[in-house]
Amino acid sequence: MRVRADLNISLDGIAAPPVGTPEQPFGEDWGHLVAAYLATRTMQEQVFGKNDTGTTGVDDAYARRYFEGTGAEIMGAHKFGLDLYGDDPDWKGWWGPNPPFHMPVFVLTDRERPTLEMEGGTTFHFISAEPQDALHLAMAAADGQDVRIGGGPTVVKDYLRAGLVDELHVAIAPIVLNHGISLWDDLRGLEADFDVRSEAAESGTSHVTFTRKVLAP
Amino acid sequence: MRVRADLNISLDGIAAPPVGTPEQPFGEDWGHLVAAYLATRTMQEQVFGKNDTGTTGVDDAYARRYFEGTGAEIMGAHKFGLDLYGDDPDWKGWWGPNPPFHMPVFVLTDRERPTLEMEGGTTFHFISAEPQDALHLAMAAADGQDVRIGGGPTVVKDYLRAGLVDELHVAIAPIVLNHGISLWDDLRGLEADFDVRSEAAESGTSHVTFTRKVLAP
Repeated sequence: MRVRADLNISLDGIAAPPVGTPEQPFGEDWGHLVAAYLATRTMQEQVFGKNDTGTTGVDDAYARRYFEGTGAEIMGAHKFGLDLYGDDPDWKGWWGPNPPFHMPVFVLTDRERPTLEMEGGTTFHFISAEPQDALHLAMAAADGQDVRIGGGPTVVKDYLRAGLVDELHVAIAPIVLNHGISLWDDLRGLEADFDVRSEAAESGTSHVTFTRKVLAP
Repeated sequence: MRVRADLNISLDGIAAPPVGTPEQPFGEDWGHLVAAYLATRTMQEQVFGKNDTGTTGVDDAYARRYFEGTGAEIMGAHKFGLDLYGDDPDWKGWWGPNPPFHMPVFVLTDRERPTLEMEGGTTFHFISAEPQDALHLAMAAADGQDVRIGGGPTVVKDYLRAGLVDELHVAIAPIVLNHGISLWDDLRGLEADFDVRSEAAESGTSHVTFTRKVLAP
């Protein structure tokens, strides 16, 4: 059982563009950040329900890993849309009636909201908790599988700074954004605790994976 | 004849650490940024004069390209050391009597200094010029070969913003620095004019190359 985090970032480290609207909840740049990922066969299936379409190269291998072996997710309030729709008791997230999680999802928020049982096995729990406490809840719910820190970057950084992430994968899109929340701010020296490997995709995306070093017993 | 730029940067885009001293002219982080590059067989030969030692993988292929086909270099005053040693008329740069350039090098500075002829074919010219004008001088001196914009990042950014770079190669070391000059600041949308490809090295370094799109005639 490991704690994994995945983010799509730009060359300048922007993981979340700044301005969200109902039409573009993660800002106008979001589409550029995730274009190569959404073009993969795995994402076409999982997110759009389309079969036998999409790219099958390196990006797709990482997209497939994203969905494998994960038993619970922790996400921030912004990712669920509570900054825009927190006052709407009927808001159920961006993903329609059958969200592509199919597991318990813990949304970190100070707002009290009832648990949402969705189709396909996704259950959204809304909790106000410190990173370590939320992780304990997610681990208990993950049934021996990995826990994913699903973002956005502020949540991932909280877990990285707390030393709670075993594996961080970033897909670096070959674009420069300049505006938004950088993953790397205030993470100087992060690499010291990890082995780092890099793999390039046909799309120009660089996949960089940090794997926590195993200390000798 | 193309205009090429090469930089070693961190995951957060830092191309030049902030503080230089005579012992560490490019700051304490510089060694981490260029470690994988200096470990290559090509750099061991070119910079340290050592034969038959060093890595021979992807990093070395890029190091080799760095030295191939270039007929002149443009560098900033900081790279030559004029911020520290500009008042010393005997200062001849960091590289000893036989610098690893072996071609004309144009150092951009408002200080007047006499041309320096070094061993091995390197000649340092000190010029006060706008990017385009310096480029004309370097092109004339390059004898049909490529011109390299040798850094630091401020100089490379000036040339990128002026639309004068045909190929930008960045070697992204898998480290987070947080302090220093970022290559990417104020370059939002840079990718629009370029094709971008990515290649991963065994060291964890991601090599990203921007090649200016050729417009249809």
